Amino acid sequence: MERIPILKIGAALVVTIQVDMHDRVAMTLQEDLSTSIVASGAKGVLIDISALEIVDSFIGRTLANIASISRVLDAETVVVGMRPAVAITLVELGLALPGVRTALNAERGMALIRQRLAALGLTDGDGPAEA
Amino acid sequence: MERIPILKIGAALVVTIQVDMHDRVAMTLQEDLSTSIVASGAKGVLIDISALEIVDSFIGRTLANIASISRVLDAETVVVGMRPAVAITLVELGLALPGVRTALNAERGMALIRQRLAALGLTDGDGPAEA
Repeated sequence: MERIPILKIGAALVVTIQVDMHDRVAMTLQEDLSTSIVASGAKGVLIDISALEIVDSFIGRTLANIASISRVLDAETVVVGMRPAVAITLVELGLALPGVRTALNAERGMALIRQRLAALGLTDGDGPAEA
Repeated sequence: MERIPILKIGAALVVTIQVDMHDRVAMTLQEDLSTSIVASGAKGVLIDISALEIVDSFIGRTLANIASISRVLDAETVVVGMRPAVAITLVELGLALPGVRTALNAERGMALIRQRLAALGLTDGDGPAEA
């Protein structure tokens, strides 16, 4: 698996990270996500890391990069499903994921994205991307 | 990765298969999905297989089983993102995925699930599971 699938659901792009994020996988994900945001006009990116037992500085940096890239492309990134142990380790490592919004689970993460859509005066995005 | 994450989005459970579906992974996914459907009251299950380059008879059977289990639990399963080569191989193998609905991508798959919700007189499921 060199490529992490990106699902367009509503106005958001949904990604679940299940594989070890080696440099190449991370780079590919960044590129694919940027391309998808532009192509789909998605306003939000939901990244589920519930499968990750370890989030090292590289993954942390990758998530922060994705969040920054998305922001530039007018999409908000929400990281969901972080395990308690991962949160503890991140803070102990001094990786507070700056600029990355988090939510307990996918449902709440999507709610955050919908809130932003509402604030922008857009619909939930159940329809076409530009809805 | 022994466990495939299940995301609750709207009234659907979303799963992206990125790892090789060995017996144990497949069994765990079946159990986790059944549990999640009951716990969340989800009316649909969206399974993305765009990452799979090969769908053998075991995976085909697993998908069919998941669809049957979900149906018994009053949730519809939609398999999305199948690669053209995979579709060809499946048919050549005589595996037509009986009882499994398919859609081109996640967006259309979610549309199918929303149609069913509407037919059931339920909302899109953006709110709580029982919405």
